[in-house]
Amino acid sequence: MRATIMYRAGDVRVENVPDAKLVNSTDALVRVTRGCICGSDLWPYKDMEPRPTGRAMGHEAIGVVEAVGNDVRKIKRGDFVVMPFAYSDGTCEFCHEGLQTACVHGGFFGSGAEAGGAQAEAVRIPLADGTLYVLPVREDEALMPGLLTLSDVMGTGHHAAVMARVRPGGKAAVIGDGAVGLCGVIAAKRLGAEQIIILGRHPDRIGLAKAFGATDVVSERDEEGIERVRKLTGGLGVHSVLECVGTAQAMLTSVSIARPGGAVGRVGVPHYDAIPAAAQTFYHNLIIAGGPAPVRAYIDELLPDVLEGRIQPGRVFDRVVGLDEVPAGYRAMDERKAIKVMVKP
Amino acid sequence: MRATIMYRAGDVRVENVPDAKLVNSTDALVRVTRGCICGSDLWPYKDMEPRPTGRAMGHEAIGVVEAVGNDVRKIKRGDFVVMPFAYSDGTCEFCHEGLQTACVHGGFFGSGAEAGGAQAEAVRIPLADGTLYVLPVREDEALMPGLLTLSDVMGTGHHAAVMARVRPGGKAAVIGDGAVGLCGVIAAKRLGAEQIIILGRHPDRIGLAKAFGATDVVSERDEEGIERVRKLTGGLGVHSVLECVGTAQAMLTSVSIARPGGAVGRVGVPHYDAIPAAAQTFYHNLIIAGGPAPVRAYIDELLPDVLEGRIQPGRVFDRVVGLDEVPAGYRAMDERKAIKVMVKP
Repeated sequence: MRATIMYRAGDVRVENVPDAKLVNSTDALVRVTRGCICGSDLWPYKDMEPRPTGRAMGHEAIGVVEAVGNDVRKIKRGDFVVMPFAYSDGTCEFCHEGLQTACVHGGFFGSGAEAGGAQAEAVRIPLADGTLYVLPVREDEALMPGLLTLSDVMGTGHHAAVMARVRPGGKAAVIGDGAVGLCGVIAAKRLGAEQIIILGRHPDRIGLAKAFGATDVVSERDEEGIERVRKLTGGLGVHSVLECVGTAQAMLTSVSIARPGGAVGRVGVPHYDAIPAAAQTFYHNLIIAGGPAPVRAYIDELLPDVLEGRIQPGRVFDRVVGLDEVPAGYRAMDERKAIKVMVKP
Repeated sequence: MRATIMYRAGDVRVENVPDAKLVNSTDALVRVTRGCICGSDLWPYKDMEPRPTGRAMGHEAIGVVEAVGNDVRKIKRGDFVVMPFAYSDGTCEFCHEGLQTACVHGGFFGSGAEAGGAQAEAVRIPLADGTLYVLPVREDEALMPGLLTLSDVMGTGHHAAVMARVRPGGKAAVIGDGAVGLCGVIAAKRLGAEQIIILGRHPDRIGLAKAFGATDVVSERDEEGIERVRKLTGGLGVHSVLECVGTAQAMLTSVSIARPGGAVGRVGVPHYDAIPAAAQTFYHNLIIAGGPAPVRAYIDELLPDVLEGRIQPGRVFDRVVGLDEVPAGYRAMDERKAIKVMVKP
């Protein structure tokens, strides 16, 4: 089958690889109907050390179950499913608490040998009963983009908003105008924020943020951006900051624009060693929370809104490519010429 | 009147100073019936730069109102009151939200010229109507120690527990066996924690922690201590960490013993620049919260338990001194010969 392999920074290829197949009795095999490229895939695209055997890429997909192992009970051949970016057993203490990204038997797709990547024709799903979410609809072209976001970005934006304690009537700021940040705007609006400030400067992305419910745009950076948010919020800052970037500067901005007693929900994979401004966050009684989103847990809540069109996270996909064009998709996202690229194998 | 002034690290004196008096029309003047020395007073006692005019010390007291300014409406002469360690107007947005330590007109006692210290015969209370809490009892020798803890340590231990999201049946760890840590044990028990692990090694303090409800004691430090907590919690760590020290090592231990999805409530004044282990806290979806406790907000909830003896935070006072013996009290606490010293002017 065809699959996407990254060999080092900037070197991503689509190649013929052995067909994905069942390995463990709890596996399922899913034919990918839609995959996509994630903002977090751009980190190795920028800095991955050379690896002779490469790394299978992709951790988001919707698709159709082609086969299941002998110990799979709930998932059936022919099911139309969402594959969350993390696999999980569905039975451990953390899964029961709704934190599937801490599953004691789980792991992340596309992160190593354990589970192959989803920028491919098919993907092996470990712990299928705990991992896959069976959709109540059949394959439908119009619905696919929205459903695909439940695999990662919409659930991740929602996690940022929940961890940032967005509340009805509150003030929120979203740092980052990538697909996750844009889904963060959707989530903040959906949870009732009255003011939603997006920090970003790319016209297309800002336009979409406004369509999703952003009320204010701050395109200034660093100190200037912080000042501008303060001005927009009566000098006090926002109740909720959705940190959707993952850099030291983004965290510093986050804790600087949160008002006392406010919360920062961070979902950008951290490329910093420590959370800055320990004294300021202390004296302001800030709450800092977040991490890999348990998107599996959030599908129940988000799916009806996607199916009935009340939220339209699928609009973050502004380019569709075939599998062989995936490397061009990486380039487009890296050069910020595309917000998020959908892959149609 | 007699009052405590610190001139530099290790140099604290009780001196004759001008009598405390009303300055603003919103002030009250309180005769101190009991004050005390705080663990946080030991920081300047260790590292304060010389200051020719010195710094008035003390931010905890109960006492009797001797006079009120013309614009004071609620507080009356003769009221028996708790003075929280921060003053606050009681009317701003933050005060209404119960975060009086972020009051837009507020500040901290004993931190500068604005408000004098409470290790003295009397203290001027700014914004008296918002700051003071009128007690529903008369001066009573037996009740005084417990009531005095509502000024800081009991409310601060409670804040650590609330910020660490202590829940019925949950597992909690308390870092620090000072008076705040010990009150943290009381708070964790009061909020229903099933397992309460105290990290400390001083026999008297550990004994009191057990009396307050600690179920396990970890006296090992650093990596060994972390391993021991993991073993005591089935390898997963605790739901709630009450960080009552304020050093970098204490924070590192805190984030290392919290289980995924857990929370760290920090109330130790931070003597570190950044919160360590940004990646670990992220991948474990930890919540890091806390800061100066809004003890004013917590008195309503804690007072009945103190008055009816269901909690006995007054037991943290293991030494009582007169005003002139305050310097000896600092020495005793600094040398860990006393847990917390009460001052009886």
